[in-house]
Amino acid sequence: MNIRLVIQQLGLLLLLLCLALLGVTAWGAIEHFTSQPAAGTSIEREWVGLVAEWVTVGVGLALGGSMWWFARPRDRRPAVLGRREALLLVALGWLLGAAVAGLPYFLWAHLERTAGPNHPFRSFMSCYFEAMSGLTTTGATVLSDIRAVPFGLLLWRATTHWLGGLGIVVLFVAVLPSLGVGGKKLYQIEAPGPAAQGVRPRIRETARVLWLIYLGLTAAQIVLLYLAGMNLGDAVCHTFATLATGGFSTRDASIGYYNSPLINWIIIAFMLLAGANFGLYYQLLRRRFRAVWTDPELRLYLAIVFVGCLIVCGALVEERLVSTTGDDVEPSIAAAIRHGVFQVVSIQTTTGFCTADFDLWGLAPRMTLLFLMFVGASAGSTGGGIKIIRVLIAFKVIVAEVERVFRPNVVRTVKVGRQPVDPELRLGTMVYVLALLLVFAVGTVALMLIEADKGIDVVTALSASAATLNNIGPGLNLVGAMRNYGWFSEPSLAVMSLLMVLGRLELYAVIVMFVPRFWKSE
Amino acid sequence: MNIRLVIQQLGLLLLLLCLALLGVTAWGAIEHFTSQPAAGTSIEREWVGLVAEWVTVGVGLALGGSMWWFARPRDRRPAVLGRREALLLVALGWLLGAAVAGLPYFLWAHLERTAGPNHPFRSFMSCYFEAMSGLTTTGATVLSDIRAVPFGLLLWRATTHWLGGLGIVVLFVAVLPSLGVGGKKLYQIEAPGPAAQGVRPRIRETARVLWLIYLGLTAAQIVLLYLAGMNLGDAVCHTFATLATGGFSTRDASIGYYNSPLINWIIIAFMLLAGANFGLYYQLLRRRFRAVWTDPELRLYLAIVFVGCLIVCGALVEERLVSTTGDDVEPSIAAAIRHGVFQVVSIQTTTGFCTADFDLWGLAPRMTLLFLMFVGASAGSTGGGIKIIRVLIAFKVIVAEVERVFRPNVVRTVKVGRQPVDPELRLGTMVYVLALLLVFAVGTVALMLIEADKGIDVVTALSASAATLNNIGPGLNLVGAMRNYGWFSEPSLAVMSLLMVLGRLELYAVIVMFVPRFWKSE
Repeated sequence: MNIRLVIQQLGLLLLLLCLALLGVTAWGAIEHFTSQPAAGTSIEREWVGLVAEWVTVGVGLALGGSMWWFARPRDRRPAVLGRREALLLVALGWLLGAAVAGLPYFLWAHLERTAGPNHPFRSFMSCYFEAMSGLTTTGATVLSDIRAVPFGLLLWRATTHWLGGLGIVVLFVAVLPSLGVGGKKLYQIEAPGPAAQGVRPRIRETARVLWLIYLGLTAAQIVLLYLAGMNLGDAVCHTFATLATGGFSTRDASIGYYNSPLINWIIIAFMLLAGANFGLYYQLLRRRFRAVWTDPELRLYLAIVFVGCLIVCGALVEERLVSTTGDDVEPSIAAAIRHGVFQVVSIQTTTGFCTADFDLWGLAPRMTLLFLMFVGASAGSTGGGIKIIRVLIAFKVIVAEVERVFRPNVVRTVKVGRQPVDPELRLGTMVYVLALLLVFAVGTVALMLIEADKGIDVVTALSASAATLNNIGPGLNLVGAMRNYGWFSEPSLAVMSLLMVLGRLELYAVIVMFVPRFWKSE
Repeated sequence: MNIRLVIQQLGLLLLLLCLALLGVTAWGAIEHFTSQPAAGTSIEREWVGLVAEWVTVGVGLALGGSMWWFARPRDRRPAVLGRREALLLVALGWLLGAAVAGLPYFLWAHLERTAGPNHPFRSFMSCYFEAMSGLTTTGATVLSDIRAVPFGLLLWRATTHWLGGLGIVVLFVAVLPSLGVGGKKLYQIEAPGPAAQGVRPRIRETARVLWLIYLGLTAAQIVLLYLAGMNLGDAVCHTFATLATGGFSTRDASIGYYNSPLINWIIIAFMLLAGANFGLYYQLLRRRFRAVWTDPELRLYLAIVFVGCLIVCGALVEERLVSTTGDDVEPSIAAAIRHGVFQVVSIQTTTGFCTADFDLWGLAPRMTLLFLMFVGASAGSTGGGIKIIRVLIAFKVIVAEVERVFRPNVVRTVKVGRQPVDPELRLGTMVYVLALLLVFAVGTVALMLIEADKGIDVVTALSASAATLNNIGPGLNLVGAMRNYGWFSEPSLAVMSLLMVLGRLELYAVIVMFVPRFWKSE
């Protein structure tokens, strides 16, 4: 394995991440010098956040730069990024990226006097968890008092979502000099879904087209949210969190803070857009409407959302609704529909925004949400979970297998849309789903064992494992809509950080590092 | 589909079941006329049990006889039992067999004055559950006061285990006139494991050899338990329940009633024997020791039991042990080992006998037991669960798939022992495991929804679903070692009866009946 090349590219990736952070500080600085302090925050605190970010940029540039310099190729031959190097680069890129992305939180908590010795960000593991939660677009937070954190850091927190949504490595492929075939390998490892096909023949073009679509959607949502009454900072942060299907909010009550149906519906619409395959938008731009409309994954996606909304809204009409602000919602059918649809779309797309405390809901809607956590969003979207297309393939394979029991001699092809699914993908899909369930079970047991002395209940452990592995954010009970992950011990936060990156990179890129044969030269 | 043939053979099956019940009543009659009433039971009650059994025999003979007579073939051509007919015969055989096998309980509870209006057997659904639990060798009971039930019924309860262990239909294949190729189909559907191979070329011989081995083991265990101090009735009942990996006991405290290490170790040994592939005993008889010793499934089976024992016994050495009688066990390393090994072997082989209340144990041993519930026993044994060989294949397929990620171009064969696993079996295994987990999840949710007003906890629902689907018996919390299933409502008992037969027939024979295409003529 060409470790030098991996280290060198890793250095470049860090440099890129630091540039993004530097960009974020620009706005923080403007905020510092111009704004009035918002409620609960002070201009001085904003300044401490800026310092923390600048120190991180310095550290990151030094580290990334030296990695890039010392690991530069010794000879002039073009470096070849093989499959194993690509896997290692992606996995290490995420693991190391989260460490750098979490550093500003850690520095801030140690520089800021008012943060106090019990502030979650005093522990580096908590900061790492928060940064990993950001980059993997999970949206699980350790913070209980979000408004005490300066705007500059909240903007960075939202930006980690936005960068991680389409993939930090895909961004890297899009903007940096081509790695030849290597870029395609990187793209395939990081892009969600079983068969990541490029929308354009050349992978750099694909990455660029996807980022342009992403930028367009981002601009559109920011404008709409601003027009609907959000201030610009919140509009940007929530847009980043929506389109990446992340879920970090700048408010303790999440979207529930804005008691505005218009804002809710705008976010619902953009969550739905973010949970669909981005390749479809490229098809739309090229006016291939028929291809979009007949896409089997899109149809199933909308159908599942629709059925989920029916079940949940139906159950909510009769029920007492409590907003995430803690206030009772005026009972009406419109409110039941709005809050029901919001929560279903938020969980299904693995965003994790909340407007209502769904932990108070009945068993049927809560079970529906737990089920949707595993289904997840579409392949090629920014969302997590098993992915709709895999659920579809797995279902069809199971049906075919049941039919084989009573008609063993009929040769059957499993089709998705008009495309036959080849046997390798059939097996691969079943293996993936089973492996994900195994990781989920292991994660649950690990959390229960680590937190045994706190007497963590099964529902909390199950849903924390599911919500981090599937990159959702909130779970049930002690990690529910009104709670956070700050009370977990450091080993649990480490386990869940691992679950998040396992889920985001679809298991294999991380798992292979534990296989001895991966490290042996061929 | 040749429905007539299915009905006719179903009639024969019922006749056979009634003959077995008639045989059981013979001992009940001897007990009635000779024995002193045991503690808590009366001679009169024994008599009521006999009447209930005789009425059932009468009803069964009339029903089975008329099915056999009215559905006899109209022409002289030999009837061909196709694949779909075989599937239907096995599924209906178990569903109908449980109804007949449960009838004596129901009749007894209505004839016996002292049984009282709240006795669980007053509900036919409870009797059906108890009979299905017997035939599927689950061992989950609705009874809280076992000693109040006459011996004749307890013997029948144990006999349902023994008949269901190797399979009622396999017995049928062994003793009744050959159905030609049909017998092989029946055997394959009912025998547990992914690829049920006969030990002899002709399937009737296979069925006979297996039943002879089963009879031999039965005789050996009865003698040993009797010599170890059990009375003959208990020795027979517990032997039936051990070799079928069932778990019904004639005592409320299960095996914990016998505070005898010797009896515990005898039962541990025979549970282990019952959880291994019976084909191996045939190999032993033919002196093919090497084939037995190198069998990969046997090795993994023993290894899993060993590791499970290490974890559980290690955790128990420091812990307070409470016997199923409710008494504290004198703390000693020998007692920790004995109770640890007993519970591990009992759960792993899916028997479900108990000597200690494992619900009081720490998280690690309880999680180990829950994990073992899913692994289950060997293919070709009388046990349930996923089966060791499937766990082995699934593990190897996952490893191969992970390797394919970083070495996509290497052709890999997955081998078990020296046998390559063909692609169809690979996919089939993954599908089976995933389908089982899905059924488990659906079962859990169904129980939670049905029992929502009783506020059933998640651990109870999860473990009740796992313990019935994997044919184990006791679960955790409200269905734990010291509890029973009598408190469930009738819809829940119906769901769990379905889970038991789904687990015993390895899903497909039951699932196909819900597929419309199954019923269409080809």
